[in-house]
Amino acid sequence: AGDAAAGKAKAGICAACHGAAGISAIPTYPNLAGQKAAYIESSLKAYKNKSRKGGQSATMYGMAAPLSDADIKNLAAYYSGLK
Amino acid sequence: AGDAAAGKAKAGICAACHGAAGISAIPTYPNLAGQKAAYIESSLKAYKNKSRKGGQSATMYGMAAPLSDADIKNLAAYYSGLK
Repeated sequence: AGDAAAGKAKAGICAACHGAAGISAIPTYPNLAGQKAAYIESSLKAYKNKSRKGGQSATMYGMAAPLSDADIKNLAAYYSGLK
Repeated sequence: AGDAAAGKAKAGICAACHGAAGISAIPTYPNLAGQKAAYIESSLKAYKNKSRKGGQSATMYGMAAPLSDADIKNLAAYYSGLK
């Protein structure tokens, strides 16, 4: 599993849309708090490889592009651990 | 907003993957409980019009196809209201 603390350190930019505690302030952006870690991981990878389309994909391509696999695991651990 | 009770009545088939209380039993399938209603709505519409791709889209196309806009609003109300 990922390292939630390292994930938190990476999550600054995510908080702008997904909320500081993973509950988004914008109705059409998903909450991430308590989401399944494996789902967060597969979604970030799908944004990174651009296989996921629709919705805010274009924005998320930019967010996911610089993330390493470790970053992705850590972000997934961080958000899935939030209540 | 949608009618959560009507949404619950429609959610029988969703529960198979997303869990009876919106917490999925399968790690790569997202929890829906407490998710943003507007995000659930936009996702279901994106599956219905097939603009969303990647992940389990193919499965979700079949799930979303028979849903009316009212069904979609009701399902979103139901799942967003679950804790």
